[in-house]
Amino acid sequence: MFEFLTNRRTVRNYSDKKIDAALIEKILEAAAQSSNTGNMQTYSVVVTTNDEIKKQLVPAHFNQPMVTQAPVVLTFCADFNRFSQWCKQRNAKPGYANFQSFMAAAIDAIIFAQTVAVAAETAGLGICYLGTTTYNAQEIIEALQLPELVVPVTTITLGYPEVIPPITDRLPLQSVVHYERYTDFTPEKIGAIYAEKEQLEFYKNFVAENKKETLAQVFTDVRYTRKNNEFFSEKFLKALQQQGFMK
Amino acid sequence: MFEFLTNRRTVRNYSDKKIDAALIEKILEAAAQSSNTGNMQTYSVVVTTNDEIKKQLVPAHFNQPMVTQAPVVLTFCADFNRFSQWCKQRNAKPGYANFQSFMAAAIDAIIFAQTVAVAAETAGLGICYLGTTTYNAQEIIEALQLPELVVPVTTITLGYPEVIPPITDRLPLQSVVHYERYTDFTPEKIGAIYAEKEQLEFYKNFVAENKKETLAQVFTDVRYTRKNNEFFSEKFLKALQQQGFMK
Repeated sequence: MFEFLTNRRTVRNYSDKKIDAALIEKILEAAAQSSNTGNMQTYSVVVTTNDEIKKQLVPAHFNQPMVTQAPVVLTFCADFNRFSQWCKQRNAKPGYANFQSFMAAAIDAIIFAQTVAVAAETAGLGICYLGTTTYNAQEIIEALQLPELVVPVTTITLGYPEVIPPITDRLPLQSVVHYERYTDFTPEKIGAIYAEKEQLEFYKNFVAENKKETLAQVFTDVRYTRKNNEFFSEKFLKALQQQGFMK
Repeated sequence: MFEFLTNRRTVRNYSDKKIDAALIEKILEAAAQSSNTGNMQTYSVVVTTNDEIKKQLVPAHFNQPMVTQAPVVLTFCADFNRFSQWCKQRNAKPGYANFQSFMAAAIDAIIFAQTVAVAAETAGLGICYLGTTTYNAQEIIEALQLPELVVPVTTITLGYPEVIPPITDRLPLQSVVHYERYTDFTPEKIGAIYAEKEQLEFYKNFVAENKKETLAQVFTDVRYTRKNNEFFSEKFLKALQQQGFMK
């Protein structure tokens, strides 16, 4: 029943085939029926296909080639701009220049984005999420001319797959599911959960290539370092402030 | 092609029919194949069916009846606990006690939650998101005994529909979609976008019941007030701090 979800893979290489604009509209229309906060729909998406504008987005995404190679780049935003403008025009005082409103809008945007991803994959398209969006929100805000109370929270590159990559491994389900309350992990359980992953040839090569002792060190020392995380935390909080969400 | 997405409705009234535990596992397993940050899977879900524990969650969700009426309550968490424990056991120093890591983990959790929602609806179940999760995260943390680096970001109540409610209205697609770059709204465009919604009998009654002049005022003065948003902003930031995400 769930093959359309279990059989998916992230696609980073796209064929030259363009995506029909009508298909993109249908995907977005379908996704807009997803849940959102109080039916305020406090999200938006910027659909970018223009090469010049995609080039302006590339550095914000650390030059990942998907941004220019994919025919379509979708930037999903937490958006209280449209709603607040409506309030002002209707003799109502919007009170959404705060962190809680940002969180609600960010959740709306991600729910919408993931439904877009599911719909796109159902239509034979391939997608890749770009986590760099919250790293360099400021540069994306400039490139896409996002006004106050609009902050990008994630990006999806979209296109027909050039090749179908293998399905990516996941941890055993017990790693992410807790019953009734949260059951914290024992060292033994952590060992058991990660055992299979650490034995995969793919990850063993990953450790060797990065000249590290353990797979975990590749994450902490190379891919997601404390120094970078702290730097980009400051930067993202500044973007929230600048877009008016921290008053 | 997208009827499984366009034909959905939020379900707030559930029948007495229990959900097979094996079905819940299949739904969660399917959703775990969704995208996540760097394949770290920095999310978790607490599956609560026990009446006593559900009762402890109720006040955090402002006594919304779905929490006790639904056979299953799913609390989705941004979770860097398991990953950080693994790092420590593998001679790696985790650097995830910061806001950027919280954002990445929150996005992982919401992507996972929305895929759970889609899978559940495909299986004939009904779902309702509870936005109250970020309002009263602190109380949920206590009820579910969430450790450091675990913060709840959304909740879904799950059950078989007692009745099938009507599909909820959405704004015209142009309200949420921008092409190439963001095009800010003119007063005329705002008027056009909201015209149909404001004419719906449902919303006209909503305005009358709340003794307001405009629908927007129901949102700003009753449902999502500035005072509440500011209060719950402080509260959620404190929860992030207490769980160790703002170092």
